Amino acid sequence: MARPFISLLTDFGARDPSAGILHGVILGIAPEASIVDISHEVRKYAIRDGALLLWCAVPYLPVGSHVAVVDPGVGTERRPVAIKTARGDVLIGPDNGLLVGAAARLGGATDVHLLQNPEFRLPVVSTSFHGRDIFAPAAAHLARGVELPRLGPEIDPATLVPSPIPEPVVEAGRLTTSVIYIDTFGNVKLAATRAQLEAALGDLAPGARLRVTLGGIDHEIPWRATFGGAAVGTPLLYEDSYGRVCLAENQGNVAARLGIVDDQAVVIKRD
Amino acid sequence: MARPFISLLTDFGARDPSAGILHGVILGIAPEASIVDISHEVRKYAIRDGALLLWCAVPYLPVGSHVAVVDPGVGTERRPVAIKTARGDVLIGPDNGLLVGAAARLGGATDVHLLQNPEFRLPVVSTSFHGRDIFAPAAAHLARGVELPRLGPEIDPATLVPSPIPEPVVEAGRLTTSVIYIDTFGNVKLAATRAQLEAALGDLAPGARLRVTLGGIDHEIPWRATFGGAAVGTPLLYEDSYGRVCLAENQGNVAARLGIVDDQAVVIKRD
Amino acid sequence: MARPFISLLTDFGARDPSAGILHGVILGIAPEASIVDISHEVRKYAIRDGALLLWCAVPYLPVGSHVAVVDPGVGTERRPVAIKTARGDVLIGPDNGLLVGAAARLGGATDVHLLQNPEFRLPVVSTSFHGRDIFAPAAAHLARGVELPRLGPEIDPATLVPSPIPEPVVEAGRLTTSVIYIDTFGNVKLAATRAQLEAALGDLAPGARLRVTLGGIDHEIPWRATFGGAAVGTPLLYEDSYGRVCLAENQGNVAARLGIVDDQAVVIKRD
Repeated sequence: MARPFISLLTDFGARDPSAGILHGVILGIAPEASIVDISHEVRKYAIRDGALLLWCAVPYLPVGSHVAVVDPGVGTERRPVAIKTARGDVLIGPDNGLLVGAAARLGGATDVHLLQNPEFRLPVVSTSFHGRDIFAPAAAHLARGVELPRLGPEIDPATLVPSPIPEPVVEAGRLTTSVIYIDTFGNVKLAATRAQLEAALGDLAPGARLRVTLGGIDHEIPWRATFGGAAVGTPLLYEDSYGRVCLAENQGNVAARLGIVDDQAVVIKRD
Repeated sequence: MARPFISLLTDFGARDPSAGILHGVILGIAPEASIVDISHEVRKYAIRDGALLLWCAVPYLPVGSHVAVVDPGVGTERRPVAIKTARGDVLIGPDNGLLVGAAARLGGATDVHLLQNPEFRLPVVSTSFHGRDIFAPAAAHLARGVELPRLGPEIDPATLVPSPIPEPVVEAGRLTTSVIYIDTFGNVKLAATRAQLEAALGDLAPGARLRVTLGGIDHEIPWRATFGGAAVGTPLLYEDSYGRVCLAENQGNVAARLGIVDDQAVVIKRD
Repeated sequence: MARPFISLLTDFGARDPSAGILHGVILGIAPEASIVDISHEVRKYAIRDGALLLWCAVPYLPVGSHVAVVDPGVGTERRPVAIKTARGDVLIGPDNGLLVGAAARLGGATDVHLLQNPEFRLPVVSTSFHGRDIFAPAAAHLARGVELPRLGPEIDPATLVPSPIPEPVVEAGRLTTSVIYIDTFGNVKLAATRAQLEAALGDLAPGARLRVTLGGIDHEIPWRATFGGAAVGTPLLYEDSYGRVCLAENQGNVAARLGIVDDQAVVIKRD
């Protein structure tokens, strides 16, 4: 029988012991679990960053439970939830928008339960570390074969807090979107997908000249199929490996060069 | 049969290959070991930070061997030790104060051995990487069923270097302690536990007004049960998820805001 | 039967989800694989850093597949390769010099294949994430027992891009080399091994006085057997735990103190 699969994504940071403690709690309950860290370096409290990274990762992970914790509201009224998806995964974490994009990517939420049953929490639940006390134990108990409904009462998926990733505005000849993530290479991910950009501007061939307005300043940036299609140190717009529109520089850091920051508005037209 | 469990905590850093090499050495000796990283980003040479993080983590880890390496004295006369605890774990690392707090948390040291038997070290022992050459192999051999006494001669637990975490001074109406760790959220852990603070000031109800003196400056900071009990951006004193007194700010970085640094003296009274 | 072993080394960074995605892709294909991260914090695009860290790590890892991705040429004509070594390992990644030093350390390349067979890639291959789409799947299929020649056509090992680690110049009484890596402790690794330094200067006893020229400035630095042999805060030259000549400071950061940077020329003579 295959080992049950659990992934983890948090803003806990690599220095603190919190991520390791999640592993320990899970293995204490489900010693055969196979655990993968998606990231523990999500920007602190940045629910949108976490939502995006989880959305990127889940299609490439085995079916299993995915625990995500970016949780500025820990200890308040926000609900702890487990979202079953059409693919068969269960997404576990706070109901603050972090999970719903990934749920959609896995075929959509089929049923959602609150994590209220004390039987599947640690004996003592702190006010500040629900990853350890509620979320990791829930994933571990599911890995041992506990049925989802036993974790707590069912709720209506329509009541989940929506995704924090903003929808682009697609108009004829013009796409209006924004910067949602700057990766560790300095590549800049936009909220728009390639499909949305082509819905606005028509099919894009490599070399197509685009006018990209960033923070009120226009840049002429070509559409490219690969980094290598641009000279070293020159910017390009391309479809990243997840289908998103991304601004980059061949072997350089375009975010640093152009002073791009999170949330900045972006307008793209043909040049 | 359950897979034997090994945890790792070091100041090796995520960039260098040292932590991965510990995994490789262990799996070469004990392929079925289940290995969890507590942290490899302990502040360089900061034995106290490592001691605290290990103390935080071990109660949440399965019984097993815990290898900890923050070891400014590597290659000198400091002793390499394995400490058996009442819970059944073995703590492995340098005898420099790093392990004894965690040993106490696991019921106390029952017997302690030096890691001297060359049979359970790598064939060549370097002067600068005992994690790889002595500590990881010891944990892996224990995971394979080697009995602790075979690792080397027994020593008296009373001769172990004591913990570097300073004891607070509890007086009627006044607790004197210090900053021992600033976590990646900027939350500030003190050497004192909630029990010690209440021994000095009496029972603390949410909202209790406290006077906290930090670096000679007085701050009025309320005791809170949760982050969410304080307005965003305002400081609070609370019991962290390990039972320690901690200074924080709801969704903010209190260490940066108040200029708090490690080792700073802290006095807490009622206001 | 032992679980098949796979190691990973990349410049993807701990914040982005890319490294976790490699784990997920591998476990989706080979659920029993045992996966170890050597590092995902290799300096961006720094092929030489990656080559050195891989060279350091592989002798301490179980025999298996080692996936390395520092790949500024992704999406261009550079070849994706799998290098079988005399020890029995397979090194997988771009043909850009990253793998050949580690191959030599494992007894040398015995046969090399291109990763061209679409059967052992993901169904869709992006232009910017070959780690996910080509390299990790290749390692996972090998872990499941696929024979190396099925991955793609054999090529001549002599056509591989050579290692980026420069050979020192050994002369009577003088070694000319350069800085190739500054680790997270600030220790400075040189391209030369101890054997090469002794070929130039004769046998080195602890305390031997050496004249080290760095960036045109002469320093008198003793040869030491251990860090502890030098006073705290004083520099030393020693053989690191991999056999390389390394410049360090007992409990300090010698790179920061002396302003040492990557690629800096270094000349060592007796003083």
